[in-house]
Amino acid sequence: MAGTYSYKIEPRDIDVTRRVRVSTMGELILQAANDDADNLGFGVRDLNLSNASWVLSRLAIEMRRLPQRHEQIDIYTWVSDYGRLVTTRNMTVSDASGAEIGAVVTQWAMIDLETRRPRDLSALSSKGTSLVDREPPIERPAKVGSCSGEERPYEVVYSDIDFNGHVGSMKYVEWMIDTLPVETLSSAENFRLDINYLHEAKLGEKLVICQGEEMALRGRYHFDIRNGDISMCRAKVEMGR
Amino acid sequence: MAGTYSYKIEPRDIDVTRRVRVSTMGELILQAANDDADNLGFGVRDLNLSNASWVLSRLAIEMRRLPQRHEQIDIYTWVSDYGRLVTTRNMTVSDASGAEIGAVVTQWAMIDLETRRPRDLSALSSKGTSLVDREPPIERPAKVGSCSGEERPYEVVYSDIDFNGHVGSMKYVEWMIDTLPVETLSSAENFRLDINYLHEAKLGEKLVICQGEEMALRGRYHFDIRNGDISMCRAKVEMGR
Repeated sequence: MAGTYSYKIEPRDIDVTRRVRVSTMGELILQAANDDADNLGFGVRDLNLSNASWVLSRLAIEMRRLPQRHEQIDIYTWVSDYGRLVTTRNMTVSDASGAEIGAVVTQWAMIDLETRRPRDLSALSSKGTSLVDREPPIERPAKVGSCSGEERPYEVVYSDIDFNGHVGSMKYVEWMIDTLPVETLSSAENFRLDINYLHEAKLGEKLVICQGEEMALRGRYHFDIRNGDISMCRAKVEMGR
Repeated sequence: MAGTYSYKIEPRDIDVTRRVRVSTMGELILQAANDDADNLGFGVRDLNLSNASWVLSRLAIEMRRLPQRHEQIDIYTWVSDYGRLVTTRNMTVSDASGAEIGAVVTQWAMIDLETRRPRDLSALSSKGTSLVDREPPIERPAKVGSCSGEERPYEVVYSDIDFNGHVGSMKYVEWMIDTLPVETLSSAENFRLDINYLHEAKLGEKLVICQGEEMALRGRYHFDIRNGDISMCRAKVEMGR
């Protein structure tokens, strides 16, 4: 089973180029994942009843172009596989003309809300019928290594925290993107973003946002958000024109 | 003429209490204003054709309760009056049962996009038929004075900037709210917020967020966001339980 979810790009979602922000595109992707899991009977609401929740582990987004203000996008999503610890949910993003403008692969773990430890996904085997026999549309999210480079301090505030009491998944992306020159963002026509979520940051936590230096080519960036030696979130992004 | 606009509170809109964030409630209010002006033929899109735009001058929001995740809210909005420089747009916010849970008064000026100076709203007189003979539902936004108190530095980043190239109206609210103890926010059942928008902050601008000390009563706060001696945005909020 699969589903299609439609969203309109609102004025609050866009940047000065009048295209959707990368982090907001990510929010819409997470919303589609959430809506589809709800419809299939294993969304966060259902899981909470048995004291469990989904945790995003890795995410890859490729966008050929960023949709503009007032555009409607359709996100088609399906679950292609699950192992004991991780399940893979895929998406394609289309514009009103039906053209595919983006594709996504997400990997999720299920955690126990008391212990914060992973649960065995075999418990979901009864939902096996929700699997769709269609491969991920792009390469799966890469493992991103640690990086060294310029470090900026950041202290987590209330507006960063989501309903789980942790930093929202797309806040890390905002912090990373905010370190880039605005011209880089304005001139980017397409991108691929690989994110690894490693630990959950909390309110008041003092982090450093590290932007790696090792990327020699233009338009490639590498990030690591850490508290001391512990990485919360790592990502790399490649932008094209 | 008036219109009703419906929005669903999504997971990305809520905080750890699973109720909509104050700043996100503000975004939905601005979206309703934008949608209604569009429908009446004098939205930002129409104004841009003659090189003008709306600028939010003052805003008052009273909420009796904050809607929760998955709730649908209806925002009913009407324009009650306009003078030469300022027009007043009002709103009531209802939940799915039809109960009124909030009310809003917004005041807008029209500016010339080249000079950034106000335009005479008499030019809109042909739209006089869009006025509704119904008083604002709550007291109009108060004038908020300067304040002295604890100051926190803040430098404007890319994610703060909206499609006009300036800090988004609700970003100031986020920064103010983020200075408050999270327990204050979690325990608030209702609030009134008065905001004055005075100058537009830009990317890279170095601001201070001042939280005033003079409020003796619990649950009352006073803010002033400044660059040097110039106030960008002032607000006061009163929270109740």
